[in-house]
Formats: sequence, C-alpha cells, structure tokens
Amino acid sequence: MADHVAVPGKKVLTMDTMNQNVKKVEYAVRGPIVQRAAQIEVELQQGVKKPFTEVIRANIGDCHAMGQKPITFFRQVLAVCLYPDLLDDNRFPEDVKSRAQRILQACSGGSLGSYSSSQGIELVRQDVARFIERRDRGIRSDPENIYLTTGASDGIVTMLKMLISGEGSSRTGVMISIPQYPLYSAALAELGAVQINYYLDEEACWSLDIGELKRALTQARKHCAPRVLCIINPGNPTGQVQSRQCIEDVIRFAAEENLFLMADEVYQDNVYADGCEFHSFKKVLFEMGPEYSSRVELASFHSTSKCYMGECGFRGGYMEVLNLDPEVKVQLTKLVSVRLCPPVTGQALMDLVVNPPEPHEPSYQTFVKERTHTLAELAKKASMTQQILNQVPGIRCNPVQGAMYTFPRIHIPPKAVSAAQENGQAPDMFYCIKLLEEMGICLVPGSGFGQKDGTYHFRMTILPPSHKLEVVLEKIKEFHLRFTQQYS
Amino acid sequence: MADHVAVPGKKVLTMDTMNQNVKKVEYAVRGPIVQRAAQIEVELQQGVKKPFTEVIRANIGDCHAMGQKPITFFRQVLAVCLYPDLLDDNRFPEDVKSRAQRILQACSGGSLGSYSSSQGIELVRQDVARFIERRDRGIRSDPENIYLTTGASDGIVTMLKMLISGEGSSRTGVMISIPQYPLYSAALAELGAVQINYYLDEEACWSLDIGELKRALTQARKHCAPRVLCIINPGNPTGQVQSRQCIEDVIRFAAEENLFLMADEVYQDNVYADGCEFHSFKKVLFEMGPEYSSRVELASFHSTSKCYMGECGFRGGYMEVLNLDPEVKVQLTKLVSVRLCPPVTGQALMDLVVNPPEPHEPSYQTFVKERTHTLAELAKKASMTQQILNQVPGIRCNPVQGAMYTFPRIHIPPKAVSAAQENGQAPDMFYCIKLLEEMGICLVPGSGFGQKDGTYHFRMTILPPSHKLEVVLEKIKEFHLRFTQQYS
Repeated sequence: MADHVAVPGKKVLTMDTMNQNVKKVEYAVRGPIVQRAAQIEVELQQGVKKPFTEVIRANIGDCHAMGQKPITFFRQVLAVCLYPDLLDDNRFPEDVKSRAQRILQACSGGSLGSYSSSQGIELVRQDVARFIERRDRGIRSDPENIYLTTGASDGIVTMLKMLISGEGSSRTGVMISIPQYPLYSAALAELGAVQINYYLDEEACWSLDIGELKRALTQARKHCAPRVLCIINPGNPTGQVQSRQCIEDVIRFAAEENLFLMADEVYQDNVYADGCEFHSFKKVLFEMGPEYSSRVELASFHSTSKCYMGECGFRGGYMEVLNLDPEVKVQLTKLVSVRLCPPVTGQALMDLVVNPPEPHEPSYQTFVKERTHTLAELAKKASMTQQILNQVPGIRCNPVQGAMYTFPRIHIPPKAVSAAQENGQAPDMFYCIKLLEEMGICLVPGSGFGQKDGTYHFRMTILPPSHKLEVVLEKIKEFHLRFTQQYS
Repeated sequence: MADHVAVPGKKVLTMDTMNQNVKKVEYAVRGPIVQRAAQIEVELQQGVKKPFTEVIRANIGDCHAMGQKPITFFRQVLAVCLYPDLLDDNRFPEDVKSRAQRILQACSGGSLGSYSSSQGIELVRQDVARFIERRDRGIRSDPENIYLTTGASDGIVTMLKMLISGEGSSRTGVMISIPQYPLYSAALAELGAVQINYYLDEEACWSLDIGELKRALTQARKHCAPRVLCIINPGNPTGQVQSRQCIEDVIRFAAEENLFLMADEVYQDNVYADGCEFHSFKKVLFEMGPEYSSRVELASFHSTSKCYMGECGFRGGYMEVLNLDPEVKVQLTKLVSVRLCPPVTGQALMDLVVNPPEPHEPSYQTFVKERTHTLAELAKKASMTQQILNQVPGIRCNPVQGAMYTFPRIHIPPKAVSAAQENGQAPDMFYCIKLLEEMGICLVPGSGFGQKDGTYHFRMTILPPSHKLEVVLEKIKEFHLRFTQQYS
C-alpha cells in the first residue's frame, strides 16, 4: 500500500486528475464575456459609473428574458395542470380546462409530479407524431420513434453519445458546420469524438455546398471514421434557411457516404425571408422515395424554447428517430431510462405546442393573434438588423432569413488584431469585450462558433424589443466607427 | 477512398458500431420486468383474462403515481408563477402570491420561460444555502457552492463525469455500496469508470462497516485508482439510516485514504424508526473540526422527488460542493453551462421546498398538516411492510428505518434456482417475473441492485396507499408460500 498513501492536503479532484475531456469543452454562449456582463451589472447596481445605465444581453436566444410574452393558452393550461382546483375557475375557457384534463389523465396518478415513462408520456408522443404528419403533409410518423427530451440539447447529446465509439483511426468523426452552435463542439469534446468541420459559404448567404462536405469528409477519413453529419436548419448562428434542393443533396450525400443524419430543426417556425420556406429533413427524405426513406438513418430535434413560444426555461423538446436498428433502439431507450424522464412540465408544454387550439375552440383567436404578433415582430427585427448593420462601413451581414440571430462579418484593423494578440485574446473577443465595456452590449465573438481563419464575426440575437434593438444597432454602429478609427 | 466505400443497406449505427459503454449500462428500476408490466396492462385493457384485474407497481419511488397528494402551497405558488394573472385571484392566500412574485422577480424578464444562469437562479441558491444552514444547525453554506440540478441523478452524473479520468491502472475507481441504487452502476458503465463494490451488512440492518470499506479499497488499488466514495443515506434500496458515528468513521476513512465523498441524501426527511435521525455529511464533517472541514472534498445531493413532496416529474434538485479546487469549480460551472440550465419550474419548486411557509403565514397550518400526514402514512406503511413480510417463512426483512423501500431477503429453493438457470434468468428475476404474471405485482429483483452471491432479494416501495399495500403484502405472502411449495 505504500505507493498509495494519500498526500495530506492534496486535493483528490484537481486540474490534473479531472476528466481531461471536460477541460477541452468550450461554450461561448455562456463564456467569459457573459460572466463579465454579469459583473458589470453588479457594478452598476453598486453605483459604479459607466458610459451606460444597463447591460443589454443579445448573446443568447432567451426570448422571455428580452420581453417576449408567453402564449396565454399554454400558460393557462399549465397552471390548471399544476393546480387542478382551477378547473372550477370561471376565468379559464373550456378548451383550457379540457386540455388540462386530457394531459392530467395521461399522467400516472393524474399528477404532473409523477415520473413519466422514460421515452415520454405516450399521449404527448402521439400528439407529436400527428403534428409531424400535419407539418410534413401526411408522411407517417410513429409515436414509438418519438423521444421527449430535456430541451433539444439533451436529445442531441444523447444521440451523439450513442454514436461515438472506436479508438484512433476508427474513432467516430462527426461533421458539423462552421460556424456552428457550440453545443456541438462542446459535446464532441466531452465525448472525445473527432470534430470534422465543414464550412458554410458566407458569400452565398451561408449556404451549404456539397463540394465542401466532400472535401471535409475525404480529409477526415485519413484519420478517423466519419459516421455522423449534423445540420442546423434554420441556421444558428448564421440565420440561413436551406432550400429544398440543398436538403435533398445533403440526404443523397449522407446516403452515398453512409452517414447518420442529425437535423437540428428547433427554429422551424422562425422563417422570415420572402421565398424561404422550412422543409424538414424527414419530409424531403420521404419525398425522395423508398430508396432513401427506408434506409437513411435520421434523428431530428425540436424544442419548446424557440419559434413563437420561446419557453426556454421549461427544457421541453423531442427527437424523432428514423430507420434506427431495432436493437440499437432498445439500447437508446435503456440509456434514457437511467435519467428517469424529461421534466413533465416541459412534456406538457411540448404537447400544447404540437397541439394548439383549433379554429372552433374559444382560445383559438387569441392564440393566433399572439403567435402572429411574435413572429411578425421577429421578422421586422430581422429586417431592421440587416438593414442597419449593412449601413456600417466594415460590417457586412447576410439577410437573416430565419432563426433568431445575425452573424455579421466585421472588419478588424490590423492594429487592433495586434493589440488583441498582445492581450492574448482572439481579435473578435477583444472587439466584443470593448463593446461590452464601452457600450454595455453583450454579444458573442465569432470565434466561439468557428469561422474561416482571418475572418471575424459576432453573433447577436434579434430578440430585444424593437425600440431597444434599434438603440443596440445604433450603438454598435457608433462603436464600430470609433473602434476602426482608434486602430487605423 | 476504396476502403471507405459504404456498404449499401448496412446501417451506420449498429450494435457493433455503437458506443460499447452504453451497451454495458443496466437500470433495473425500469428494466425488462417493468416493460413486461406495461405489456400486461395493455393486455388487461384488451380484455385478456388474468388472475388479477390491475398491475400494482411497487418498482419505483414514484409517490404521486401511487396516490400521494401534492403539497397545496407548492402547487398554488407554481400555478401563479406560470400564469401571473392569478395574482388577482381571491382563492390564493397572500403568502402564495408574495412567494410567486418573489420567484418571478428572480427570473429574467419575470418569466419561468427564461433560461436561468447555468448554476441556477441566484435567489434559489441563496434560499438553499439558508435551508442547509438551518438544517445543519448554523454551519455556514455558501450559495456559490450550490448548483441546482435536473433531479439528483443529474448532479450525481455530473460530478462523476468530472471525477473520471485516467487509463488502465490509473483509471478512476468509484466505491459504491452493494446493494446500490443502479443509477450509480449505470453512470459508471457509461463513463467507463471502475466500479468498486463494498457490501453493506445485512445482518446488522444494512449498516456500513469500515473494515469492509478497507477490504474493498485495498483490493481495488491493485488494478485502478480509487478516488471516490459514494454513500446513500438514508439507504436506497435498503432503507437503513446511518448513525452519526458511522458517518464520522466514513469521513475519517475518506480523509485518510484521499477519497472524494459523494453523499446522496435525497431521503433526508424520510426517517421513520425510533432512535434514528438524519445527519448530513456536511454537518458531521464540520463538527469533526477544521482538520476535516477545511480539507475533505464533498458533494451532497438533494431532490424535489422524495421526502414528503414526492414531486418526481419536476426534475428539481441541488448539489452542494465543498472544498472543491477553485479551478475545478470553474470547469464544473463551464460543464453545466453547455446544457444551459436545469428546468426552471423544478428550480422554483426547489425554492419552495427549502423555504416553506413560516408559522405566521396563512398557508402554514395546511402545509404542516399535509407534510405531517404524508410522513406519518409513510412511517405506518414502513412498519406494516416489515411486520407482514417477516411473518412469511423464507422472507426476512430488516426494519425500514428510512427512505421508501424494503429490500427483503427471500429464500429461493434449489429447484427454483435450477429452473431459473434453465430459463437463463437470475433466480430472483425468475421469482419476480412469476410474481408479476401470477399476482400482477411489479417489484425489482435484487440482482438489479447487487447482493452477496447466493443471496436473493427484491426491492419493493412502501408507496401504495395503506389498504392497497396490505393487499400487496398479503399477495406476496400467498405467492411466496405457493412458490416455495411448488419448488420443494
């Protein structure tokens, strides 16, 4: 035992002994710049003088935090589910009550406080399947292929966990877009997978080019076993909406190259640009015929956090799996059972999202009015964002066709690049930190999402209320001009 | 590229290509027997004749599913939080409204639909810290050491993820009790850690013996690097409550052997036996003086799912970390930020659990009445369970001092053991399957939790309502006698 004697005072868990994969994890959306924003807020409260009076957080797609209002019907049903005595309250319309009763009847013991089955409440999975069928114009969806999740992130990480195996050159490689949503790179780092970058084409409105997919795949095959292709559509952080043709090409590519497809479709209602339309990977896959629909393995993801509802706090979501090996499916179900079940309030909310009021029901008009208003506001803000930013010399942004973000390219003068390097910072981190300190605006540097070498960007949400968003954009303009002048 | 050509028709994700660690995961609480129970329920609905009319599920600690009622105050506050228009509803007492307002003010944008900070809402963490201080008689708790979690399971897996590293003989070994709650073995399998079993002493009411810890540790050091010691107190599945002395001995052992302590204390209010009392590891650690309290690394876990509230569906919980290396703590916070935040409804509920109505508030009396009733019922059922089971020749059960389970030892005749082996089943699985098919009672075989070789057990919850629990126990008695006779 002598060689195992404890060293008194030495900790068990240190930077040296900890899981080294965790050390490699990065998640810029909540990274150092956001922590500094929180500090500045405390300083403002303590009366520290700043050139601004509040920090505006445009770093994360957190709708309600930016003032977006919840959908009344959803919240009414959830309130009744939580406290069923409200069933006799006259303030609630009949459809709210009947919907609440329907959900409660599907919960063990009639309570949201019970565990659900690990895959999620059966009724909710049935409603999700019917929603997918309506959305995809009749293409069949099987509730047995639906897994409710703790937000889309949970589903994505779970599927990646299933897929990552092998060592050395047979280690699973996962293709992700650059720029990407950093959940992907973080999960791959944690799971020790090989990240394979394919670059979106900024010059062509962040579109996806099959030639680039091929290039990335061919190169990756020299050192790992590429097995998975991840797509985010509509795009985060880039806001593009993929054409039907592009999706078809991607599916054909995946089929030819034997890749498992993961389609992150959490922004499926967030499409603003004329001529753009959301097509689900599932629908296109089936429209391509049985050669594809009977074979290509696909997992697609949705969430209660985005679209018009923006209910991030509930951590609701689902994934639909297709063509999964039946034995593997048993393993997947077993894996999710260890965490017991996704939050039942999130499952109940997911049910309402996929099964909103119908035209003959009393809550319908208010529901449609609220949904239309929120989506129209977002469309207006998407357009305002690209318009104002494109007026600034040195900033160029693609149209925000969908999702909730712009990812403009910013020109950073060589002197500023040098100054950043002296600080040991990425140039766009240097830029964003200054923007935060001088203007109180919290954005995320492009380096947190990945970008072509020598290009710089930031991600900004379009979520602040219109009047505030305009101020933000004008402040960015003012800052950018000053910054450029300072470093020329 | 020739060696990478896809094999048409072959799936990407198969039993051979999938994550091999996931294959090793087992979670008996929701294993094959529970799936069979669900099938039987469907068969009953379809009119298939059975020797029973309903399946009684005593396999999982799912309180509300078994008819336990939620705490009115908790549900009222949550309903108002979800639908703040209810603030003007006269049915709600003032303390409900003020509590809801307090929680909403702590949420970004005043909505439960916003993300919280990744560590959890600051106000809730403050309330948790104050709760711990009251519980532990004034020992200080720092809100910065509190992490809100998605149920206790999430916290436990997160800490294990941090702790598991190294390869071969330097791979992290984690000591867990046998019998154990299978979340532990499942998480260790998934993370590829080395599981180190230490056996609880069934003859001494499932107590923990330091000699046995030493034996297990010494043996494990020959092939791995033991770094973590996990304790469940009150015990799951074994229902024992550890004495203060035992906890002190465990802490001393961990300090001497340089082990990171993980204390699963989700049943802290579930203590029924005379002379038993819950002592938190944190409190005992501080009472042992600065030599220990300034050095031993501890993570302890709590949940909204158990105790008197039993709100499993909300997936609420917290962990408190102590003496964590500050750099490691930064890594932990980064890791949890990737999943954005725990469900905010679960966080709000956790806040109410740690901060229930006070004596001068209008909801106090009802709250105390409901809590007392639930705990008294559980105590009554704990006692009834051990009493009836111990009447059966061939079943012997320790007192259910705490938690929600009994783990009786069952005598399985050699002929039944042979019959099970012929079926390729563990003898206690064979027993439980027969019990399910013949009596409609769903329990979990002891083999799913671990037990000494040649001994057999099952885990049963004490959660069914008294009159039903009595039926369950009588049916087990009847079944056991018949089974024993059949196989003698």
